Amino acid sequence: MEEDSADPYLPYDGGGDTIPLQELRGGGSNYAMSNGGGGAGASISTHLLDLLEEPIPGVGTYDDFHTIDWVREKCKDRERHRKINSKKKESAWEFTKSLYDAWSGWLVVTLTGLASGALAGVIDIVADWLNDLKEGVCLSAMWFNHEQCCWDSNETTFAERDKCPQWKTWAELILGQAEGPGSYIMNYFMFTFWALSFAFLAVSLVKVFAPYACGSGIPEIKTILSGFIIRGYLGKWTLMIKTITLVLAVASGLSLGKEGPLVHVACCCGNIFSYLFPKYSKNEAKKREVLSAASAAGVSVAFGAPIGGVLFSLEEVSYYFPLKTLWRSFFAALVAAFVLRSINPFGNSRLVLFYVEYHTPWYLFELFPFILLGVFGGLWGAFFIRANIAWCRRRKSTRFGKYPVLEVITVAAITAIVAFPNPYTRQNTSELIKELFTDCGPLESSQLCQYRSQMNGSQAYPAGSDAAAAPGVYSAMWQLSLALVFKIIMTIFTFGLKVPSGLFIPSMAIGAIAGRIVGIAVEQLAYYHHDWFLFREWCEVGADCITPGLYAMVGAAACLGGVTRMTVSLVVIVFELTGGLEYIVPLMAAVMTSKWVGDAFGREGIYEAHIRLNGYPFLDAKEEFTHTTLAREVMRPRRNDPPLAVLTQDDMTLAELQNIISQTSCNGFPVIVSKESQRLVGFALRRDITIAIENARRKQEGIMLNSWVYFTQHAPTLPADSPRPLKLRSILDMSPFTVTDHTPMEIVVDIFRKLGLRQCLVTHNGRLLGIITKKDILRHMAQMANQDPESIMFN
Amino acid sequence: MEEDSADPYLPYDGGGDTIPLQELRGGGSNYAMSNGGGGAGASISTHLLDLLEEPIPGVGTYDDFHTIDWVREKCKDRERHRKINSKKKESAWEFTKSLYDAWSGWLVVTLTGLASGALAGVIDIVADWLNDLKEGVCLSAMWFNHEQCCWDSNETTFAERDKCPQWKTWAELILGQAEGPGSYIMNYFMFTFWALSFAFLAVSLVKVFAPYACGSGIPEIKTILSGFIIRGYLGKWTLMIKTITLVLAVASGLSLGKEGPLVHVACCCGNIFSYLFPKYSKNEAKKREVLSAASAAGVSVAFGAPIGGVLFSLEEVSYYFPLKTLWRSFFAALVAAFVLRSINPFGNSRLVLFYVEYHTPWYLFELFPFILLGVFGGLWGAFFIRANIAWCRRRKSTRFGKYPVLEVITVAAITAIVAFPNPYTRQNTSELIKELFTDCGPLESSQLCQYRSQMNGSQAYPAGSDAAAAPGVYSAMWQLSLALVFKIIMTIFTFGLKVPSGLFIPSMAIGAIAGRIVGIAVEQLAYYHHDWFLFREWCEVGADCITPGLYAMVGAAACLGGVTRMTVSLVVIVFELTGGLEYIVPLMAAVMTSKWVGDAFGREGIYEAHIRLNGYPFLDAKEEFTHTTLAREVMRPRRNDPPLAVLTQDDMTLAELQNIISQTSCNGFPVIVSKESQRLVGFALRRDITIAIENARRKQEGIMLNSWVYFTQHAPTLPADSPRPLKLRSILDMSPFTVTDHTPMEIVVDIFRKLGLRQCLVTHNGRLLGIITKKDILRHMAQMANQDPESIMFN
Repeated sequence: MEEDSADPYLPYDGGGDTIPLQELRGGGSNYAMSNGGGGAGASISTHLLDLLEEPIPGVGTYDDFHTIDWVREKCKDRERHRKINSKKKESAWEFTKSLYDAWSGWLVVTLTGLASGALAGVIDIVADWLNDLKEGVCLSAMWFNHEQCCWDSNETTFAERDKCPQWKTWAELILGQAEGPGSYIMNYFMFTFWALSFAFLAVSLVKVFAPYACGSGIPEIKTILSGFIIRGYLGKWTLMIKTITLVLAVASGLSLGKEGPLVHVACCCGNIFSYLFPKYSKNEAKKREVLSAASAAGVSVAFGAPIGGVLFSLEEVSYYFPLKTLWRSFFAALVAAFVLRSINPFGNSRLVLFYVEYHTPWYLFELFPFILLGVFGGLWGAFFIRANIAWCRRRKSTRFGKYPVLEVITVAAITAIVAFPNPYTRQNTSELIKELFTDCGPLESSQLCQYRSQMNGSQAYPAGSDAAAAPGVYSAMWQLSLALVFKIIMTIFTFGLKVPSGLFIPSMAIGAIAGRIVGIAVEQLAYYHHDWFLFREWCEVGADCITPGLYAMVGAAACLGGVTRMTVSLVVIVFELTGGLEYIVPLMAAVMTSKWVGDAFGREGIYEAHIRLNGYPFLDAKEEFTHTTLAREVMRPRRNDPPLAVLTQDDMTLAELQNIISQTSCNGFPVIVSKESQRLVGFALRRDITIAIENARRKQEGIMLNSWVYFTQHAPTLPADSPRPLKLRSILDMSPFTVTDHTPMEIVVDIFRKLGLRQCLVTHNGRLLGIITKKDILRHMAQMANQDPESIMFN
Repeated sequence: MEEDSADPYLPYDGGGDTIPLQELRGGGSNYAMSNGGGGAGASISTHLLDLLEEPIPGVGTYDDFHTIDWVREKCKDRERHRKINSKKKESAWEFTKSLYDAWSGWLVVTLTGLASGALAGVIDIVADWLNDLKEGVCLSAMWFNHEQCCWDSNETTFAERDKCPQWKTWAELILGQAEGPGSYIMNYFMFTFWALSFAFLAVSLVKVFAPYACGSGIPEIKTILSGFIIRGYLGKWTLMIKTITLVLAVASGLSLGKEGPLVHVACCCGNIFSYLFPKYSKNEAKKREVLSAASAAGVSVAFGAPIGGVLFSLEEVSYYFPLKTLWRSFFAALVAAFVLRSINPFGNSRLVLFYVEYHTPWYLFELFPFILLGVFGGLWGAFFIRANIAWCRRRKSTRFGKYPVLEVITVAAITAIVAFPNPYTRQNTSELIKELFTDCGPLESSQLCQYRSQMNGSQAYPAGSDAAAAPGVYSAMWQLSLALVFKIIMTIFTFGLKVPSGLFIPSMAIGAIAGRIVGIAVEQLAYYHHDWFLFREWCEVGADCITPGLYAMVGAAACLGGVTRMTVSLVVIVFELTGGLEYIVPLMAAVMTSKWVGDAFGREGIYEAHIRLNGYPFLDAKEEFTHTTLAREVMRPRRNDPPLAVLTQDDMTLAELQNIISQTSCNGFPVIVSKESQRLVGFALRRDITIAIENARRKQEGIMLNSWVYFTQHAPTLPADSPRPLKLRSILDMSPFTVTDHTPMEIVVDIFRKLGLRQCLVTHNGRLLGIITKKDILRHMAQMANQDPESIMFN
């Protein structure tokens, strides 16, 4: 037997007598009595951290850019819950507090939903107005956008509905003429001028006030939700600046969308409201439940798809998603959607601009073009991810990234100058998507719907017999192809600029353009070859058999799927746009193909790629660890490293402890029985030790450098002249996670993922061998994938 | 230092040299080489089970009624995957095999979806026909049900559409007269006769051929999915008998539905198809992924709600639900839904009988009656669960449960006799729900729609001005109230009978009746008091302001929610029935209220209650463990128990080992370094040891009772005359899960839930103290909840 004298625990005593009962009772916990049958008698229990001493302020908090310990946070929350529960019968006030606590979860998601919906509505309205400002102003009321301005107009024919006397283009206003090359140049100039102004304002605001407001925010939110601290990323400054600059960035005409940033905005709301409730503000794990719900609300308002939003939060963003969170996320998403609908920013009583209804069924043969669109989406996604990451890496590593304002202005200028001549790139991207999704009806005035039936003045379209394309369609196809190339190039350079920039809308636009082109091609094929065996049965003359708008929608879903690698949530979001179960199969075929094709070129979606680019410690729950390494190959210390820094439970002085802390940089230290036995007692975090020592120095008399430090229940027997010892048991985690050195890494990775650990100790036959941290795992995984392990920068 | 001579592992050697390299290479695994930077050099690794020896047949399988070890199963699957991957470049055949393996997941869910959809269609059609057989037969074609029989009829007025000359009631057929008391009695008799015959046939088939075919099956499926083995529960016999008897049970008119059993049927399909693919048939964890997808398909066809089905599988049934499964479940649900729609059993091109569309919006004030319905639903749910469990417990414990056939016949007779006079109980429950959900239109002929406007012959209903109820509505309300009481009582006694019986339809029917009654009451209130401040603004004379059908739907959701405690999935399922986002808020309000009210009386849903009643080892992921016990209070051995049965790694003889095995009943034994040090080496399962010993006796020469048994890498040094030793390292799990004795039980429960463990060892300062199994945890939880811990029967 080895030395065990300091060990107060006798095996098999059922564990009831080591902790003085009356002291524990004072702790206010809800002690569970095991009654009958169990054999252990009345057993009193304590908790992770020792309750005997009052908590040291600061212990249990985290540094910026550090990983949280989910297990510890959840234990803290249960402890808090028990305290409130045990107190609630003491007084009416305590009871009210417990009720407030119980309801705070619903309150905070309701507030988050309300705020996200309201902000989304405001953003939609202001962005619309600013966007129209690039073309002209409404003389009757400056704050009206083009559409609102012409609502009261008498010109009610559909072709002319956009032209009303109250709305003046800049050329009309400045030059006094609406037509002619002079006014065209004037409009061109004003368009570019406003675009540049908006872009400059946006990037300056971001740069000066809130650098975290740039980008889509989804990679960072994913990392935060997986248990990482980035202070200020979801703060009020970020919220304010992101909201303002998002409007400006969208209005500037850059190839970006507002959907991703809306998720960030919603998460900021969730984070800010969680400060009203101590349950959430003081617990990093609980706060992340609110953030999951907030991201569902964000997608819900971005796409008008509450169920899709919840699934997006579940599939794409969240890490820890208990069923309670599912229900609350759903609630938040619904509240947000209803607020947005009451604001009614699009004037169509719908949640989205591009709500569509199709009336024609699809045919089995059409699956072929749909799958082709899926292949296109997958290729585009893989290409985009590579190109964008290469460009962003270049921006990060070269001098070039030092001038973000110049970069934004350059991109905005190129975008505006190239975009203006082409009507499909000049207009708002969301409106372009709407136009592409919508089927041609008799009232449609756009070039895309110039079929012969319309040219003949017949209102019979879509009646098939004259579904032959007129020249307008061909010229539209040509312009759309140019727009496609333009969007593809610009999006690569736009995503990652120092302005809020979402990727959903540009990706969908690219897919919608490609889809519409394919759709029209198939339609014309079917028209001119309606007696082919493929078309013969269902595409008779006079019947309306192809819906080009559906192709646009399928293409949009495929491209979005290729970029983000979303699956169910994407299908459900698009399903909620159309509302018909009918079209789920084409969508699914395209999204599945696009995912498979994309995955063949690299399994990461754009968000994971950006997470890796930034070196965040994100342990992806989707990626499988397939290697056969064992824990001992990954743990530190490695073969040639110095031995692991450990503390002993009762034979160190304060000086020795401080020496170990100052000589190492690791975030925590295992505590062992003695150097000889190497048997593990617990784990103490560096931050907690430092705080506890400082606290003791301040509050306790007689703590000196030669004071003994002990982690045991009772002080060791000391020489008579030694100074007062320092007890650190309260900061000792007495239930550290351990695995044996033979444990396959796939199990270790699983444990880290599912339990949300920060570190895990490795033992062999009961002796401490080493430690594995989340960073070690990520570095090991990077190494296995032939990537640079040093790219994982944070703990 | 203690004795460590048998320990081949030297700390900090980086672990590369204990296993002979060339032997490992032969194992066929895909060895990962850690390249550069890592410091460990080229490291070769092995696996949980030693690869040096060929696998012993039977090791790694489970006994009936035992819990699986998810971690081990997942490791096995990754190992298999690596083997296939490493072989796939060897030959075209191996490559094909690897492709087959990669696609088998999609294949099996496709097959499952196809089969579930087809079976659901057949069940719908046959049940409909049998149900109409109780009333009469179609003379022109025996196999037509009432509706099909009258399709060709010339009687096209809506009031008379059900009366056609081809369709003969039994009275017409036997007595030759359609009216009068004699024919009424004849019809009454035949109705009861057929109901009893169907019920008798159903219960006899279940009793003789497949006892597992009874009940809804969802509690058992939940348990199986959480990692439990019940052989034959999802077999072909169960499938066949359940399909046949489900049709009979539904047709017999008992107060039961086919939705729960359809989930069971779909899971049987999933299980049977998984036998075509070794990837799934040989791995219990992978098989459960298929079953999750199958249950989604089951709900998808039961309600025509693919997204709701997936969420149901996620929220209610599944335990381990990775994102891959989500996507496949969605696919299976869609395939099943489309197959069912092509079969078109309801003749309305819809997936469900009760598809509805409402056209009137709801008003904020209406939330009050909706919440009232929620309260009713919650109360009904709580009452039903208590009453049904009490009755089932009585059936289990008394002699009364010995006569299942008699019981079914009695219940069927009472149901038939009481049901016949009341038109709302006589008809099929699904049709009743459909009628209650549907709003009154001008063509509606039922009593429920006898408003004054109709009586006046005006087609203007719903036009409000004559929305006053006529006597027909009042008599319908009276009959509905009676039906409500009848359904409530009968459902309590029906759920749990030895026939397939689902709970969704009866619960929904009860809620729909209550909802319709409340809806009509509010409607009449609004009609007669349309100048009240509540109704004044939106309920003007002439406007259609209340939709009683919506109330029925909200009530149905509330009652179903009260019984099952489903949340998101329930709202989504009902949302998919109506198709409008509009009505989600009322649904959500009612479902939330119903859940809260129900939870106030007991947190368990009906399925959890039945799981507990049957003593299955189910660790609910939803229930929080809130007590403060520590691991050492739950672990065995308890204070007065004999010490833990342990094996030592290298100083036991076969006789000693067999002695320990025969004297104890536990399922596994920790292996320690030596009795003195108590340091843990690994864990060996009883079943594996027994199989390995038998295998060695059969195959190895010279194994005798005094042979030494060792778990180490190399044989211990033995006296010269000792017989050949038996090496058992290959069955030793060298990475057992351990926790310290101070670990709070909430963390232990979390680990068990999230990782799916079977047992966990408890250590103190590196020494083995005891063991905690899933059963121990469940018993402890039962004890904490003041329930009988002995009710947990299985391991």
